[in-house]
Amino acid sequence: MNFLSDNAEAAAPEMLEALRLANEGAAIPYGEDSLTVRLQAEMARVFEHEIALFPVVSGTAANALALAELVPAHGAILCHRGAHIAIDECGAPEFFTHGAKVVTVDGPDGKLLPNAVEGALEQFSKGSVHHAQPAALSITQASESGTCYRPEEIGALSSLAARHGLKLHMDGARFANAIAWLGCTPAEASWRAGVDVLSFGATKNGALAAEAVVFFNPHAFGDFAYRRKMSGHLLSKMRFVSAQLLCALAENRWLLWAERANAAAGRLASRLKSIAGAEIVHPVEANIVFARLPETTIARMRAKGAKFYDWSPPAAGRMLVRLVTSLATTDADIEGLIEAARD
Amino acid sequence: MNFLSDNAEAAAPEMLEALRLANEGAAIPYGEDSLTVRLQAEMARVFEHEIALFPVVSGTAANALALAELVPAHGAILCHRGAHIAIDECGAPEFFTHGAKVVTVDGPDGKLLPNAVEGALEQFSKGSVHHAQPAALSITQASESGTCYRPEEIGALSSLAARHGLKLHMDGARFANAIAWLGCTPAEASWRAGVDVLSFGATKNGALAAEAVVFFNPHAFGDFAYRRKMSGHLLSKMRFVSAQLLCALAENRWLLWAERANAAAGRLASRLKSIAGAEIVHPVEANIVFARLPETTIARMRAKGAKFYDWSPPAAGRMLVRLVTSLATTDADIEGLIEAARD
Amino acid sequence: MNFLSDNAEAAAPEMLEALRLANEGAAIPYGEDSLTVRLQAEMARVFEHEIALFPVVSGTAANALALAELVPAHGAILCHRGAHIAIDECGAPEFFTHGAKVVTVDGPDGKLLPNAVEGALEQFSKGSVHHAQPAALSITQASESGTCYRPEEIGALSSLAARHGLKLHMDGARFANAIAWLGCTPAEASWRAGVDVLSFGATKNGALAAEAVVFFNPHAFGDFAYRRKMSGHLLSKMRFVSAQLLCALAENRWLLWAERANAAAGRLASRLKSIAGAEIVHPVEANIVFARLPETTIARMRAKGAKFYDWSPPAAGRMLVRLVTSLATTDADIEGLIEAARD
Amino acid sequence: MNFLSDNAEAAAPEMLEALRLANEGAAIPYGEDSLTVRLQAEMARVFEHEIALFPVVSGTAANALALAELVPAHGAILCHRGAHIAIDECGAPEFFTHGAKVVTVDGPDGKLLPNAVEGALEQFSKGSVHHAQPAALSITQASESGTCYRPEEIGALSSLAARHGLKLHMDGARFANAIAWLGCTPAEASWRAGVDVLSFGATKNGALAAEAVVFFNPHAFGDFAYRRKMSGHLLSKMRFVSAQLLCALAENRWLLWAERANAAAGRLASRLKSIAGAEIVHPVEANIVFARLPETTIARMRAKGAKFYDWSPPAAGRMLVRLVTSLATTDADIEGLIEAARD
Repeated sequence: MNFLSDNAEAAAPEMLEALRLANEGAAIPYGEDSLTVRLQAEMARVFEHEIALFPVVSGTAANALALAELVPAHGAILCHRGAHIAIDECGAPEFFTHGAKVVTVDGPDGKLLPNAVEGALEQFSKGSVHHAQPAALSITQASESGTCYRPEEIGALSSLAARHGLKLHMDGARFANAIAWLGCTPAEASWRAGVDVLSFGATKNGALAAEAVVFFNPHAFGDFAYRRKMSGHLLSKMRFVSAQLLCALAENRWLLWAERANAAAGRLASRLKSIAGAEIVHPVEANIVFARLPETTIARMRAKGAKFYDWSPPAAGRMLVRLVTSLATTDADIEGLIEAARD
Repeated sequence: MNFLSDNAEAAAPEMLEALRLANEGAAIPYGEDSLTVRLQAEMARVFEHEIALFPVVSGTAANALALAELVPAHGAILCHRGAHIAIDECGAPEFFTHGAKVVTVDGPDGKLLPNAVEGALEQFSKGSVHHAQPAALSITQASESGTCYRPEEIGALSSLAARHGLKLHMDGARFANAIAWLGCTPAEASWRAGVDVLSFGATKNGALAAEAVVFFNPHAFGDFAYRRKMSGHLLSKMRFVSAQLLCALAENRWLLWAERANAAAGRLASRLKSIAGAEIVHPVEANIVFARLPETTIARMRAKGAKFYDWSPPAAGRMLVRLVTSLATTDADIEGLIEAARD
Repeated sequence: MNFLSDNAEAAAPEMLEALRLANEGAAIPYGEDSLTVRLQAEMARVFEHEIALFPVVSGTAANALALAELVPAHGAILCHRGAHIAIDECGAPEFFTHGAKVVTVDGPDGKLLPNAVEGALEQFSKGSVHHAQPAALSITQASESGTCYRPEEIGALSSLAARHGLKLHMDGARFANAIAWLGCTPAEASWRAGVDVLSFGATKNGALAAEAVVFFNPHAFGDFAYRRKMSGHLLSKMRFVSAQLLCALAENRWLLWAERANAAAGRLASRLKSIAGAEIVHPVEANIVFARLPETTIARMRAKGAKFYDWSPPAAGRMLVRLVTSLATTDADIEGLIEAARD
Repeated sequence: MNFLSDNAEAAAPEMLEALRLANEGAAIPYGEDSLTVRLQAEMARVFEHEIALFPVVSGTAANALALAELVPAHGAILCHRGAHIAIDECGAPEFFTHGAKVVTVDGPDGKLLPNAVEGALEQFSKGSVHHAQPAALSITQASESGTCYRPEEIGALSSLAARHGLKLHMDGARFANAIAWLGCTPAEASWRAGVDVLSFGATKNGALAAEAVVFFNPHAFGDFAYRRKMSGHLLSKMRFVSAQLLCALAENRWLLWAERANAAAGRLASRLKSIAGAEIVHPVEANIVFARLPETTIARMRAKGAKFYDWSPPAAGRMLVRLVTSLATTDADIEGLIEAARD
């Protein structure tokens, strides 16, 4: 009954098998190995587009490195007020960009609306040396609230971004969950909708530690390779990271696994609704459920061993909690939770 | 016949087994898991000293993060002119310290001598705001030339460092090889000799990607935890890094593996001496052999599939090359190379 | 009729005379000259406290250098949403701190209230490596809205800051105007109320280019001297900056000049109230007047040559404008403006 | 008898008069004033070339800001081992570039020779992410040894730089002294010889605090304006900096003053040669004299009040000292020194 986070889960057994297979003899280090080369081609196939791809081992690294390529030290990054890059990365975007501002914007259900972004942009004077200069818009897909941007919503934001001279970055730590829920192609929810750079996550979806920064303009990654090395993120035995990403893409696993996690979240949400005093707060699209529950219910669940995070201070006897499912979530986990809630 | 680098090698099978065992159910993410806690204790036992330990995935990250804790932006780091931190990390120490100077000093066989360090320090005016302020001395053990600092040599450098108010950092990407060769305890070649912080490497010695920053004063790691997170080096599924380090320490494997690599280097060097026109350049102590060989010999070796790096431009028909052995090096590899050289 | 900013004004003639007097023969460069030494003593006398003082040439440098001493790269600075450091310095605090976050908080009339600061602090998890760590609170005195913090208001904020482990920085670009209006001693509005570091401004109050960073704990300025040099703010002929600051302090000029500017603002505000449709927006305490005026009135004023900044987009036929007075503002300027408004 | 440095001297009286004249009424702040606009035109006229010009207040700021525009964080700057940017700016180039390497190269009489620069460049692997990438060559004119690069010497270095993809920066803290000595036009010793960016100094040559960064490609200054603001070097009352630079250019003063300083150095050197045991170490071209003198002579000179810096530890009873002349150096100063030496 661990609903803390999808990154608390074990890796898929297929991942360990992939590592075992990758572990044959010597390989050229630092990402010149054949697996990394193959990964590049596989990812291009999945996205139906030429790409430049750089494997890394953490989502924070993927996001911050990508943003550093898009945003100068005097620049600003706009994102949702709940964005991981804004609140959960200890200032990594600021560190990698050497001091750019991360400007947060409100929006319902964890998603940005064009109007709100426009409003935030109005506070900056384009071309004035006195003010930080907005240079990138970053959206999270699936969002930190467990919701997904539709391709047309991304398109509206990317048009706006282009109009203002901003690049569009997508934090795709849960990109698989979004694609699985949207039912569209990866292309439709990324470059076709105007995304410039994607942080493609696998760690929350079965891998041990594997993410990739994907540039959809394969010639516009600038100094990225140097930034990755300079920040200690160019692994010598890179094949083991690439092997994980290849394993995820193989046989469509990344989407099947994400679907499994999403389905668990859907079931969890629908079962939670049956609990007295329970309220589901955001649409449950990907693999995250936000529920407002009576404190007594929460206490009972935890007494039975359920694990999940509080998401806001209690109010009127209830509290907002976050429950994250994963490919490892079982029906027994869900039923155990519900039973504990009911006791 | 791959002598390019120990980081081009496969991982030890024990490592994959350790990953498999670590992959049981959920674990608290971000290094609060039980394996990481156990690693801390194991490493303290190995070093016979209280420590603060932080696993990371690359040697560059380990070195640069460690140095950033010791050296301010206006500081300077002294190291050997061939030091990895000086020439092979794309300016990572400068990036993590926000601009400290890496000052290189010459020394025979890849090692620093106190006199030369003293001489370099004389060029800085202590306390003058016009000059960068030396704040750390960094030595590599085993050195980039394949040699090892004796405990008393480390002690002489640490005394000097202390006298000048510098901290002593040790880049131990090949610390295992050094201990295996020296035959002393890990303690004798580290904190007992005055090392403040050690980058403990496992990647070049059987792991997939696992290093640890070890502070011998467990209360003097300052902002390290924030620096690691901010630079994207705090992995969510940290247990898989810690599992590798535990695997290395278990049953003394790290030393047995290093011994195997060292022995291969010793054999290789002794066999190379039998080649006409060959000259071994540095004492072969750890797992690296520098040899000056006739260009024709080199060409023959490569024609038969041997892989290794050139280390300096040709002169008088000969060239300096570097050959690195590892735990995976076989007698057949060595004999194949020698045979090719003889043809 | 120039009400654009106090920094658009000429310098006081006394300043040029002071420069002339300082220009006698050689002097030890880089701030070791006798004028800079004397300034240190004079400022200590004015503040009735031991201090460490560092002259610089811009308010942005003073603020950013001071904050960089208080806040690490993974830290956060809390300030008012209209604070100069947040919106008008092109990310200087982020640059000098290597990436700290500037977190803005709302508050009436340009001032922070303890409750709002407490609320903002609740969003950070103290000691969690995932989140930036608040390290300083910065308030502007007089504020960007032309209002002044009373000593007891500062005291309340400094208590709160201390409770949360934050240092208190004061952006005193218009500190003189605040003291002139409050009628208290400089000590009462600074260290006695808990201010740790003050950016003391003279440029907006008669100087050519002269500010000083004042640490009230004279032994807690850490690496400040290196930061100043490293950022190009240690002038060789420092005596000319110190001479300006000495000139300001001499014969109480800094307060007399500020009083003159404040009085002009007071007169201006009271005269503006007589204009049809005019509304004064914030209490006029220092030398800034915010007025909401009919667009037609504004157009008439500008047609007659009046200069001032728009402060928000027009709404319902009116617009918010900012008018800044200075020691150079004359009654004729004010009457000219009023006359133009009336035409 | 102050020969410490030209930056220890008083400003020329003309400078104070220029400040007085600039102090008329309000002016648009932050460099949009008419004097700064005029300066741009004047400097273009002096250099016979379109330029982009940015006034700042210190040579360190001018150099570091210019280099930050040319060199990325993973870049390297090559310069002479005695270069001010390498040893006397407390790591300012590293700070402004966010961590670029400053690589020093030896050369006779404070000047770089193409061969030595080529040799240094060979140590870097172009395009390899493991190594910092050389991006700029910086030369000092007149050099820190008081010598001047001839236009053809600059041309040889700029050709080399262009061949390797490096930009050429010139630290012209004493550019005036070089031009006065060379007798060529400013154009011949700058853009015509391939200089991309010049730090044009006035502070050591009569000003209070005034330098200018001059880009000879007026459209290639990138983010410079933001960098200047972000680092606190965009002064609000910029007119006072521009007024100093205009004053220097007016009536050819900058060259006449430099000529006066150079002539004094020439006289000083020739008189020093008459002292027993004296040896002039570098060709005396600009306004600096390096002399090796008996320690007893040095002691006598200082006993009579002469001021100058030691430049190396004593050896065989003699010591190398540096004597700098300026436009304020009088014949009496020189004769006083010689007399003291003789006593």
